[in-house]
Amino acid sequence: MNIFSRKTIVLGICAGVIATASWADSHSAEKLNPAVAARHAQMQMIGYNIGILGAVAKGEMEYDAAMVASAAANLQALAKLDGATLWVAGTEQGATAGSRAKPEIWSDSAGFAAKFDDLAMASAALIGAADAAAVGAGMGDLGGTCKACHESYRGPKN
Amino acid sequence: MNIFSRKTIVLGICAGVIATASWADSHSAEKLNPAVAARHAQMQMIGYNIGILGAVAKGEMEYDAAMVASAAANLQALAKLDGATLWVAGTEQGATAGSRAKPEIWSDSAGFAAKFDDLAMASAALIGAADAAAVGAGMGDLGGTCKACHESYRGPKN
Repeated sequence: MNIFSRKTIVLGICAGVIATASWADSHSAEKLNPAVAARHAQMQMIGYNIGILGAVAKGEMEYDAAMVASAAANLQALAKLDGATLWVAGTEQGATAGSRAKPEIWSDSAGFAAKFDDLAMASAALIGAADAAAVGAGMGDLGGTCKACHESYRGPKN
Repeated sequence: MNIFSRKTIVLGICAGVIATASWADSHSAEKLNPAVAARHAQMQMIGYNIGILGAVAKGEMEYDAAMVASAAANLQALAKLDGATLWVAGTEQGATAGSRAKPEIWSDSAGFAAKFDDLAMASAALIGAADAAAVGAGMGDLGGTCKACHESYRGPKN
């Protein structure tokens, strides 16, 4: 972990008030399969960091280079997590509570992995974003990778 | 994300039945600050991957090189996440619900970052672990890094 600057910490307060309900809050009653819970934690962290970049792009959070770089780098790292421990067999939608994972995740594992690669690349492109406009310019690609993966590999709401 | 082998997926079923209650399950009622929720998601994922390595070490899960490498690599990546977006000011224990973050995280940010570096190194050392005994041999160092950080930077239960 990088040591974070005081400036970043102060600006970071903004991140704390972004009104993104965490996944954990909204899916609290179920006892989840640990792999499913870990995937949800990964998605929660992805959503959190995208929320920061989105807030900067919209002008809801002041642009700060360190904060933007942190969010983008964390997104890249989260996208590059190894799937072996996360997308374990038998945890598709319908087989276990809370899962929206389509069977195609396993039957087309190469295609699925490519979607995470796309997210990693779109995230990396934002690491050097020099101002809010640059963040905004990269948000389309970033959001597109989320959408593309969800359309192909995520089932309907439970 | 690496493409995962069929063998890994099949063995991965074991990971799905490890009886590790997720953090999300046990702290469900509160509406958390998003930064706090993201930290909890990080810790949940760390705990999940350590649980896999621990199960292998104890013989509760069959040793599989890809699964062990995945868990260890993911631990390293999770430990290396940039703290700027996670440990935001104003989210210490007492200031916001669910937080156990001691003020020392901010007053001694270099020391705190070093603890994550220790976790990353102990995790990396397990990536090549060649059998269950080797995993077990590395678990002491790994667990020690958790304990050392929690003792210094985590407050009592809320």
